[in-house]
Amino acid sequence: MADQQQLFIKIALSTWDLQVKRAEKIFNDLSDEQLMADIAPGKNSGIYLLGHLVVVHDMILPLFGLGKQLYPDLQKPFLDSRDKSGLPFPTVKELRQYWNDVHNVLTAQFSKMQPDEWFQKHNSVSAEDFMKEPHRNRLNVILNRSNHLSYHMGQVILLAKTNKE
Amino acid sequence: MADQQQLFIKIALSTWDLQVKRAEKIFNDLSDEQLMADIAPGKNSGIYLLGHLVVVHDMILPLFGLGKQLYPDLQKPFLDSRDKSGLPFPTVKELRQYWNDVHNVLTAQFSKMQPDEWFQKHNSVSAEDFMKEPHRNRLNVILNRSNHLSYHMGQVILLAKTNKE
Repeated sequence: MADQQQLFIKIALSTWDLQVKRAEKIFNDLSDEQLMADIAPGKNSGIYLLGHLVVVHDMILPLFGLGKQLYPDLQKPFLDSRDKSGLPFPTVKELRQYWNDVHNVLTAQFSKMQPDEWFQKHNSVSAEDFMKEPHRNRLNVILNRSNHLSYHMGQVILLAKTNKE
Repeated sequence: MADQQQLFIKIALSTWDLQVKRAEKIFNDLSDEQLMADIAPGKNSGIYLLGHLVVVHDMILPLFGLGKQLYPDLQKPFLDSRDKSGLPFPTVKELRQYWNDVHNVLTAQFSKMQPDEWFQKHNSVSAEDFMKEPHRNRLNVILNRSNHLSYHMGQVILLAKTNKE
């Protein structure tokens, strides 16, 4: 069972890692100026999506009971509000640093987690609901966050000069 | 072990089903005319992305050894070629039907698969590589296809009138 369990964890984490690496490549290939633009006329800006992804990933820390959010101040402009709310944003340079900080902490924390911990419930499911829906565990969260990341990276790539799929 | 295995299959398949359902809602909410437009100036059209997703999902059938592709003719215009290649496309109406056909067959085939089959290699991994990388199984493919779908749906949603995230 331990082998099988570790295989599941590897599948889920490698999906997450792959999407995070792809996202980093896309963000690194875009200049700060490119990220200030809107992905399409009247739609979200690159900087908003970068901040949004940083805050959503940062919130995995309290959700998994791994610690406090590193940058709780990002929640208001990048999660509770839509783009162009008028709220001040950090610079792209700062957000790039926050992205690195959040992912470095997540990688370090994930590497310390025991296999069983991945199958435990996350902090937004009640013990009662978890009894009924045991798939609502941390691995499930990681897979959902991977898809959320992919969704927005399909938008951020539109800021690149070439028409990549 | 059987319980654990089935739990993981449920997690992976529920991730896939969720993304497919979200995609269907987005496609159904868009008119044929909206899908003929480009997601952003100079980028892919909605109809191209619909055809692209149909063919990529259709190819899961041979990849898993579950049967032949239903619509192999879509491969040339929607996978081997970029958008605006000049190759003829089916109508949006036809592609919507193909989407339904492919997903109906996938759902029926997936429901017949035994738990162990999800952990078997897919047809594009050699037996030798699978020995070394046992996580390259069918569940892994489903998770990667979910992320691919999310990536493109982040683009298709740009065709909607309101600025949804």
